[in-house]
Amino acid sequence: MTDATDGPVLTPIGIARTPYATPEEAPHQGFATDDETTIEVFERCEPALTGVDDVVRLLVVYWADGANRDSLVGDDGVGAFARRTPNRPNPLSVCACTLLGVKGRRLRVRGLDAVDGSPVVDLKPALQSER
Amino acid sequence: MTDATDGPVLTPIGIARTPYATPEEAPHQGFATDDETTIEVFERCEPALTGVDDVVRLLVVYWADGANRDSLVGDDGVGAFARRTPNRPNPLSVCACTLLGVKGRRLRVRGLDAVDGSPVVDLKPALQSER
Repeated sequence: MTDATDGPVLTPIGIARTPYATPEEAPHQGFATDDETTIEVFERCEPALTGVDDVVRLLVVYWADGANRDSLVGDDGVGAFARRTPNRPNPLSVCACTLLGVKGRRLRVRGLDAVDGSPVVDLKPALQSER
Repeated sequence: MTDATDGPVLTPIGIARTPYATPEEAPHQGFATDDETTIEVFERCEPALTGVDDVVRLLVVYWADGANRDSLVGDDGVGAFARRTPNRPNPLSVCACTLLGVKGRRLRVRGLDAVDGSPVVDLKPALQSER
């Protein structure tokens, strides 16, 4: 592993369906909203959902599409790794959500701060310490 | 956003230096170990570390290189999205660590469960609820 700029290619596993059209409309953090939103998992990944209905708190990892990947330091001099801004080399957002229900490939969640249409790249049960 | 299999390309921002040569040697979860390990941030990303020494609990997102990306369901019938296994479409591990110290581009952390040499793709302060 060297200082290569190109790493692994992500495979979107689904898509976020939220009422937020722009980053400005999205809540600052997921826990700051009671909105119910949906994650639509792609058909090819549906088997990976087996057993997910037993999960109460779900860690959603999504890609913040519109972020500035060249931004390493904010205007205030604080570095990207010292804050949660989506403007960072890899705009991966990690958002702990409450799973309200599963219907086929559609997950109804509370607490997702993603802009509508954001590619979802992973889902996992939140650890006790992450809830 | 369609059901495309190819998504964004990750840019490694650093590398994990741990005593674990294989996934079997790595702790099952980071919180299960007191080992001190190191994250070496690449030179081009060093500015993003500005202010990180104020962070106590750091969320480390790394790529579990050796994982099986085709595994959607385990032998026990449980889906990848219902567990924390690295065998998943995008083997992104999210690990809350205690930041013990920063020296230039080297971060000394406790609680990292990565195999030695794993590409690190993001660092962010853990939210209160993730600590």
